[in-house]
Amino acid sequence: MPIDPRFDADEAALLTDLYELTMAASYFAIGLNGPAGFSLSVRRMPQRRGFLVAAGLDRLLEALEEFRFAPAAIDYLASLKLFAPAFLDYLAAFRFTGDVVAMPEGTIFFEEEPILEIHAPLIEAQLIETLVVNQIGLASLVASKAARSFHAARGRRLVDFGLRRSHGADAGLVAARASYLAGFNGTSNVLAGRRYAIPLHGTMAHSYVMAHETEIAAFEHFVALFPELGSLLVDTYDTLRGVENAARVALELRARGGKLQAIRLDSGDLPDLSARARRILDQRGLNDVAIFASGNLDEFRIDELARAGAPIDAFGVGTAMVVSADAPALDISYKLAEYNGVGRLKTSPGKLTLPGRKQVFRARNANGGFFADRIGLAEEAAATVAREFRPAPSTVAPLLERRFQAGRRLEPRPTLAESRERFLAEFARLDRRHKDLERPERYSVRHTIALGAMLTAEKLRAEKRQD
Amino acid sequence: MPIDPRFDADEAALLTDLYELTMAASYFAIGLNGPAGFSLSVRRMPQRRGFLVAAGLDRLLEALEEFRFAPAAIDYLASLKLFAPAFLDYLAAFRFTGDVVAMPEGTIFFEEEPILEIHAPLIEAQLIETLVVNQIGLASLVASKAARSFHAARGRRLVDFGLRRSHGADAGLVAARASYLAGFNGTSNVLAGRRYAIPLHGTMAHSYVMAHETEIAAFEHFVALFPELGSLLVDTYDTLRGVENAARVALELRARGGKLQAIRLDSGDLPDLSARARRILDQRGLNDVAIFASGNLDEFRIDELARAGAPIDAFGVGTAMVVSADAPALDISYKLAEYNGVGRLKTSPGKLTLPGRKQVFRARNANGGFFADRIGLAEEAAATVAREFRPAPSTVAPLLERRFQAGRRLEPRPTLAESRERFLAEFARLDRRHKDLERPERYSVRHTIALGAMLTAEKLRAEKRQD
Repeated sequence: MPIDPRFDADEAALLTDLYELTMAASYFAIGLNGPAGFSLSVRRMPQRRGFLVAAGLDRLLEALEEFRFAPAAIDYLASLKLFAPAFLDYLAAFRFTGDVVAMPEGTIFFEEEPILEIHAPLIEAQLIETLVVNQIGLASLVASKAARSFHAARGRRLVDFGLRRSHGADAGLVAARASYLAGFNGTSNVLAGRRYAIPLHGTMAHSYVMAHETEIAAFEHFVALFPELGSLLVDTYDTLRGVENAARVALELRARGGKLQAIRLDSGDLPDLSARARRILDQRGLNDVAIFASGNLDEFRIDELARAGAPIDAFGVGTAMVVSADAPALDISYKLAEYNGVGRLKTSPGKLTLPGRKQVFRARNANGGFFADRIGLAEEAAATVAREFRPAPSTVAPLLERRFQAGRRLEPRPTLAESRERFLAEFARLDRRHKDLERPERYSVRHTIALGAMLTAEKLRAEKRQD
Repeated sequence: MPIDPRFDADEAALLTDLYELTMAASYFAIGLNGPAGFSLSVRRMPQRRGFLVAAGLDRLLEALEEFRFAPAAIDYLASLKLFAPAFLDYLAAFRFTGDVVAMPEGTIFFEEEPILEIHAPLIEAQLIETLVVNQIGLASLVASKAARSFHAARGRRLVDFGLRRSHGADAGLVAARASYLAGFNGTSNVLAGRRYAIPLHGTMAHSYVMAHETEIAAFEHFVALFPELGSLLVDTYDTLRGVENAARVALELRARGGKLQAIRLDSGDLPDLSARARRILDQRGLNDVAIFASGNLDEFRIDELARAGAPIDAFGVGTAMVVSADAPALDISYKLAEYNGVGRLKTSPGKLTLPGRKQVFRARNANGGFFADRIGLAEEAAATVAREFRPAPSTVAPLLERRFQAGRRLEPRPTLAESRERFLAEFARLDRRHKDLERPERYSVRHTIALGAMLTAEKLRAEKRQD
């Protein structure tokens, strides 16, 4: 099967860094397992990014509910000769019993803002670190990248074509889901279609045309079987002759009462070819045949094509989106912020963290547009924080919501379609200055006065931890 | 569990692009299922790359042996209302019965060279496309990136720390395996350790130090449990004070007959901090405590540190390596090269493909060093191709080997350790001009005379396919 078949439940909890287990073993040995709070945030925006899109929460919470060390996993850990039997017994009985507060999927967020906080006994919160960072990091990375194509496309349709270049099986699924969340209209990924009910797209590759003796035979065979589905790939040989052949087939299909949906251009000078293809189609009365473009597209190229007025109705976006090519990782980290009710922070150069249980407060104007956030303490009231914004906002509301309690998911559990609606609504309320593809304006994010005071106090306390 | 638990055998064959299935359905309907040959190659080298490393074959061949459409997958496909019952029955009975010739894992390769060819009935060869490109592409991408750190480290040890930033669960496993293949010494990824018998590394995160009341207590607790394993992370607060604390613990440990393995620096000015840390340790007679560095390292940074003579004994390399940050995708494609014994090619602008069954011939000098390759036809004899090289090589040998026949893996099946040895031996035989991190010299790859003649003939034939 297309992925390693042994990647099953017996091994899943082992998908972690060894140090999570050695730290946990040490905490277990010394009985250090009080209530801890960890905070997940992006320390610095990737280049050219003016906003980020939170994604991946649903998959994460499901995984947390089911997190187990199966007997086979325990056997392997025992074989390492690192861990005491009592600790292995602890792992064998391990369940994640903590709480999660998080921004719902589809929320727009910015640097330094906690997008998720875990409150759990220290060992539990530590053992899930790798999972949390890996899953939320990737989904948010891709959603943030895909939203840029959505912005550039100005309403034209977008399809995820990236599975083959995604970083493995899991990444292909995450990318299909995250791009749909961020405004895409469908995916070529069949498993993603099944699992997430995302509309599927796809017709033919060049090999299909090449396997036939002639291009026209390939087109005819395809529409004979799929009269409703067809988008004919016209650039296997000479593109404009390919368009002529597609037009011929479209007219034959029309004569039989059918309709060709689209032609697809996958190479060459797209503004020129799409204009010429449009003319060829229109001259034959095929105004209703759409032009679909693909081939190394990204938000920059889509923006160019849209600005140039290229008559392209839909885009297939692959590699650049699924690997987030210009920024293939988020500087995301999961940091201890509180232990036994006391704030913690590290003071490593350039890596200062924010102590305590936190909340993100978002200020909106009367139209719902949002213009500034404050990172504050969880116990602060929105009404109080509202006074710290200039100009005075129409509303201020917290972004982090409790979504998981004592090891179980809470209601509501938004569907992917609902999360997509949230994204679309919120994205429309974000000023375009922050959406510029090359030089976005920085969105205003500051600490509340209360968080600032806690930070100062905890810095002093942290210095004492080396005495 | 840490990945979506539903990602199981029932769904694995659905991890494909919809068009593979629509093309297959059309081939099935019209009875177009003769013997086909597909060729996998990288069209253009990524920026700054002078060589690539083949990887991922073992996982792929295992997946091909087990490729099935399970009943649940068929049910989903039926629900799409796209496919005829006879085609769904065909899929339900589907097995991959073809042959695979490929470069063994660890082989150094270059642009345009076929690294793998599939010979199978057309429908079978088409249905596995997404899997082949996804898996070989990612593994080779990461192995090629990791080899650059191996080169830059000049013998210092390297550990994969990338799991949390890898693109999902599968990518984390692929990266651990591919980087070990390409000269790394271990990984933090516990599941990769189990599955591929890769040495595991890892001790503590900043959160471990922060969870304790004092840094020294954290260090003492850790070495009490893991006296042999310890590398103490010294930069949670002030780094040099952290080194002093680690030294104190190392001396206490020594007094009890133990030995601290290393300290770890994860931030700051590494040349300066490593030199100061080395002095502190040496002044206390702790010459045997190694210095391990991590924190946003890549081949460029490792090269700088090695050139600067920073006293660092080992590097943890994470994000930049696992996502291949400066080139996060390969321009890899799987192209129909032959159908019913006749060569095929496409002539799209900039995307000319090579027809026929091919072979890659590598010329070596008397020391085994390789200096030029020829892409030729599979039936050409190495001795004949040898006459096309200048200067005259000492030996010429083919790189593509038959590894899979009639749906089953053939012997030998090299272990990961054996593939790693192959890489190490071959990498040593590649001239350093091609290994330069910024401006590698282009390695000589040409077509044999026979392939050139076939290409000319097939171009003419391709033009007729649009008449």
